[in-house]
This record gives sequence, structure tokens and C-alpha cells, in this order.
Amino acid sequence: MTDGRNDLEIGYNVPAAIGDRVEDIQTPALIVDLAAFERNVERMRGYVESMNVRLRAHAKTHKSADIARYQMAKGGACGVCCQKVSEAEALVRGGISDVLVSNEVTGPLKIKRLARLAKDARIIVCVDDAANIAALSAAAQDAGSTIEVLVEIDCGARRCGVQPGGPVLGLARVAAAAPNLVFSGLQAYHGTAQHIVDPAERSAEIALAVDMTRDTVQLLKQHGLDCAIVGGAGTGSFDMEGSSGVYNELQCGSYVFMDAHYGRVRGDNGVVGGFEHALFVLTSIMSKTEATRAVCDAGHKAVAVDSGPPVVFGRPGITYLVANDEHGKIDDPGNLLAINDLLWLVPGHCDPTSNLHDWFVGIRNGKVETLWPVTARGKLY
Amino acid sequence: MTDGRNDLEIGYNVPAAIGDRVEDIQTPALIVDLAAFERNVERMRGYVESMNVRLRAHAKTHKSADIARYQMAKGGACGVCCQKVSEAEALVRGGISDVLVSNEVTGPLKIKRLARLAKDARIIVCVDDAANIAALSAAAQDAGSTIEVLVEIDCGARRCGVQPGGPVLGLARVAAAAPNLVFSGLQAYHGTAQHIVDPAERSAEIALAVDMTRDTVQLLKQHGLDCAIVGGAGTGSFDMEGSSGVYNELQCGSYVFMDAHYGRVRGDNGVVGGFEHALFVLTSIMSKTEATRAVCDAGHKAVAVDSGPPVVFGRPGITYLVANDEHGKIDDPGNLLAINDLLWLVPGHCDPTSNLHDWFVGIRNGKVETLWPVTARGKLY
Repeated sequence: MTDGRNDLEIGYNVPAAIGDRVEDIQTPALIVDLAAFERNVERMRGYVESMNVRLRAHAKTHKSADIARYQMAKGGACGVCCQKVSEAEALVRGGISDVLVSNEVTGPLKIKRLARLAKDARIIVCVDDAANIAALSAAAQDAGSTIEVLVEIDCGARRCGVQPGGPVLGLARVAAAAPNLVFSGLQAYHGTAQHIVDPAERSAEIALAVDMTRDTVQLLKQHGLDCAIVGGAGTGSFDMEGSSGVYNELQCGSYVFMDAHYGRVRGDNGVVGGFEHALFVLTSIMSKTEATRAVCDAGHKAVAVDSGPPVVFGRPGITYLVANDEHGKIDDPGNLLAINDLLWLVPGHCDPTSNLHDWFVGIRNGKVETLWPVTARGKLY
Repeated sequence: MTDGRNDLEIGYNVPAAIGDRVEDIQTPALIVDLAAFERNVERMRGYVESMNVRLRAHAKTHKSADIARYQMAKGGACGVCCQKVSEAEALVRGGISDVLVSNEVTGPLKIKRLARLAKDARIIVCVDDAANIAALSAAAQDAGSTIEVLVEIDCGARRCGVQPGGPVLGLARVAAAAPNLVFSGLQAYHGTAQHIVDPAERSAEIALAVDMTRDTVQLLKQHGLDCAIVGGAGTGSFDMEGSSGVYNELQCGSYVFMDAHYGRVRGDNGVVGGFEHALFVLTSIMSKTEATRAVCDAGHKAVAVDSGPPVVFGRPGITYLVANDEHGKIDDPGNLLAINDLLWLVPGHCDPTSNLHDWFVGIRNGKVETLWPVTARGKLY
């Protein structure tokens, strides 16, 4: 480690200092391979340009104002999505001027905060309930702001959203008539289809979503309601929505980091992709008391396991078996590992992994180049 | 909500203000039922007194200096455990004077920090490797401090630790001879046995751990090495270790909150227990577009699901089905729920759930009485 710096705060408040070598980073730490990240951002810019659609990058993946600004400056993003009012607040405070809360916001204080935020930035929110639309309108009137709304369609995930066709039309009319709200279109995100590994099944599900969305857009048009935004799609399926002629704004997030789960989903169809793993949890071996077993210092408080355990990168034969709170059990059949050896873990799921850490450590050529705070980490409200 | 306060920072930086009613807390929020928490602390104090053993409460459950101080002041705890150097730093800075890092610490800077911390508090750490003992000794000499060490036994969990008997004796001798280290005894925690639901199987596993620990203590004694601390046990089995005559320091953590998983483990044997659920994630319904389905605003970024989904408290028939990142799908067969209704979720696993939040909201009689920061949240290094 570098002499002269305040080593004792490294590890307590931050995992590294700018200029540190990789081997001096305190583990477990969240690492961005900056070159791979930049290539992913550029690659997605190419896709959306070639499909002639907008990209509204989903910031739930990284919760970072720094990364969001980069996506807008260099990656062709027109704005960002997030899921919570407090995330939107953090992003606007971090310089983002165009934010879709791709989710319903229903609590009275949350609505009040959203309406206040709409004085400082373009704010769009999803709705699936008429009383909620009225509450948003009242708060925007009180704040003297304008909120754009997208009516959310349940296009197969059976989570939020109303049924396509008539129910969407009904809410769109309410929104269009509400003071201080602008009806801006549809939210048609099929969250579960993203994650179907079989390409044919995934295609069939997305095709259904595209069809119901197309029909609903046409129905609204027949009633004089234009959809400036037809939004949805994620890294698992964006090429389908993007080339559908129906969607005009894609909400991909994971492409910047490409987690192990999406790697499995996208690895088998070859249609588009080429995204690289750019996010890692760097972990150290901390115990090695049996020949074929090692223990690392990254458990599920450091790497999310909701989509399966992390994959050990670049070390064939070495497997992350199971996560405890603060430990990972590593299978080491060749007895290759020793205490303080480093492993690079590709998270099963990037989004909740980012949310466990305070800092992204950006590295290039084996050195720490950036420290980006996870701006909206823990912003749940 | 209370008039006059700065509402707009509530929800961004904190989920509530002191004096708020429960229905004004921003969701999803981490709630401590203070009366239940206090009863749990008192109940455990009674158990350890009756068994004539010490309690070294495990702070990994709550990562809170406020709760740790309460456990020491009112709950009979002689000190606390934690798992990481940065947790220990946070706890010492929060007024805790006696900390066991119940884990191996192997990185050079981590060892340096630990040795520095030992100038400000009693610091104990686990070891399972001779080179690590030498590194700890060197760092303590450099810092001019003394670190106590426990040799960790692998008593069945096959994680960290060496085999009982000879291997423990070997390391104990190394530690006893190392400058600025004190050999203080054994760490004999059987993490996996804690979670065996069948009481007979759990008892059998713990009995094996007790036997190997007893034999090892005797072996060390024959070689002139006394164990001031024979530590281990958790909420799933503490009565067995505590009454064994072998263990003298119990490391229970979850008893303060009692999660749904431990509720299942302890619910069936009736030997001891009586701990109440004291930790909840308060969540709001945010979408209700089908009769028998609702969506709440607590997904797995708000409630850990590594030990199963949360249990809806006090609402028979209503079930938390599955967690997405920011949503929970709720089965509502009776069509009882409406937007903004509150649900109290008992986390499947308290420890990683605490780690997702910045604040514990302590409530009593339906009002917010305390806001405790999750002092060591995200302290991974």
C-alpha cells in the first residue's frame, strides 16, 4: 500500500485509495473493470442507435450518479430509470435531469417529495390506480410542478400494472385530464420474461407483451391519446422490444455490468449481446485448513445470492459453493489456494450486490483509478 | 405526520422522526418493537445467569452500537462479538470496550488496524493458521498493543478452524509463545448445527461439538494451557452449550430480534426459548390490481431472503409469496388489502436484513421512540 496516506481509515470508510494496486484493495470490495464497463456502455449505445430507439438506462443496477452521468454523456442514454423516490432524489442531486421512477409511488409523503423533485428535474412515474393519479395531481398542484405519468400494463409478470386495452385506456384518460400531470405513455416491462433462459420461451413471452402493448397503443391513439413513451425491456430481451416497432424507450440496466445470471440467459442465443462481466466482488481467502476447501471473506452480505451463488472468474476448477453471512465456502479440488489469495467473483445478480456496498472501486491496468459512491445505496423509500 | 418538521428530508435520509405515528413511517423501514426487544434481552440475561456462563452477544445481528451498549448495560453481556475489523472499529467508536472478532483476520492492513484498535479496547480474535498468528504478533508489537487470540476448532461446520486435539494444541502453543499476543482459549462455534430444525439431530450435532471441545480443553490443560474463554453457541442451541460445563461464553445474537427462521428452529422443542419477534420490516401495499394479489414495497433489497421469504405477522391468510428487488408479491385470497395498507414482515433472517438498512426505528405504543443508526452497516472489511 502507498506509504504516507492515512491507512487506518482505508478499510473503515473506503476499501482503497486512488492509485492503489489491486492487491492492496481491502476485501470484500465491489470492483468495476473500467475498460469492460466502457465497452459495455458503448456497445449498448450502438444497439439503440441501430434500432432507432431511446435508451433510458436503469439506475437500479448501480444506484450511482457517476455511472448514470456517464451513461448519459457517453452511452446514448436520454435519462435514467429508478424504482424509489429516494433514489430519484439522490440521482437528481447527483446531476441527473431526467428520471423515470419505473414504479408506483403511493405514500402521501413520497408523493409530496416526488412533486417537489419535479421542480428540479423532469420526473416521470408509473401509475396503475385512479386514486393514486388524483393524489399525484393534487401534490403537483400544491408544489407548482408537473409530473409525467406512464400507465403501467401488466404484460405477463403479474406484478404491478393493469390489464391491457380498456383498463389502460381508462387510467390514461384520468391521467390526461388531471391538473399538473401529463399523460406520457405506457410502461410495459415484462420482468419475469427477462430471466427465461430458453430463448424460444423467452421470445414467445416477449412477443405476447409486444402484441398487447401494440394493441393498447393503437386503442389509445383511436381515442386521441398519443404515447410519447412506450417503455420497457431489460438486458435479457432488449433486442426484441427494441426492434418491435412498438417500444421506443428501453430500460436496460444490467448491460453495464453483466452479471452471472444474465450471462447464462444471454449466453445461448447469439442474436445480440457481447456484453462483458464488468462488476466483480474481489475477495480474499481467509482460511485454508483442508486441502480441498478454502474460505473467502465474501458472504451474502457482500454478494447477493438471490439469483444463485457468484461465479469465480478466470479460475477453472475453483467453485464458490455456498455463502454464509460473512464467509464463502470455496471448493479447491487442486489445493491451489492459500491465505490472502484473491478471487474475482462475478455476482449472480448485480443490482442487489451494488446495494450492499458503499463504493465502486474502478480499476484499470491493475490500479485503482476511481472511487464512485453507491449514491443511492439503501435508498428504499 | 407532525407539522413543522422538515418532511422532505424524512424518507431521503431517515424513515421517520421521533414521535411519528407508525402510519407515518416511510416504508419499507426496519422496525424494532422496543418492548419485545427489551423482554428478549432480559430473558437471555436470565438464561445465562441460571447457567452460570457469560454472554458475549453477537453484534453481527444488529451492527448497532446502541443495541450493543444496551446488551452490556441491561442484558448481562460481558462484551460483544463481530465478524470484521471494520465492525469492531465501529463498535469501539460507539463505546464498546470488549470485542471479539469471532473470525480470522488475515489481510496485512486489517491486521494493522486490529492491532491499533487493541490500544483502545480489549480485542480478541480467532486464529487457525500459524503464519497468521505470527503476523498478528508482529503488528501488535509494532502498535504497542496486546491482542488476545482464540484458536478456532472446526467442530463440524467445515468452515474455518482446525481439527480438535493436536492441531489446536499446536496453534495454541504458537500463540502462547508469540510476543504481544495472549492465548485466551477456544472458539468452538458450530454454525450449521444452529439451523437444524429437528431437535434430536440438532442435539446430536451439538453434543459432538461439546465432546470434541471438552477433550481439547483437557488436552490443552495437560500441556499447561488454560482456556479463559471457551466460546461458541448461537440462538439455535445456546442452552446445550451453556449447560455443558465446557463452554463458558455464549455468542448468541439473534435472540434480540428472533427471526422467522430461528422461530421455526426453536419453536418445536420447548426446552428454552420464549423469545419474541422484535424486528420487523414495515411495508406498504403499493399496487392492487387483482382481487387476490397485492404488491408491497419491500423486496429483497429491504428484507433478506437467504433463509426464505418473510412471514406476514398477525394477518392469517395473507402470505408473502416472492421477493423481487423492490417488490414483494402478496397472496391476498380474501381480497382484504388496499393501497397504502401496512404489513409487518418478520424477516426470514435478521442479520442480513439489518445490513440492508441505515436505521432501526424503535417503536412503543404505536409511536416512534428511537432512531438507532445501523452503525456498522456495510462494514465489510
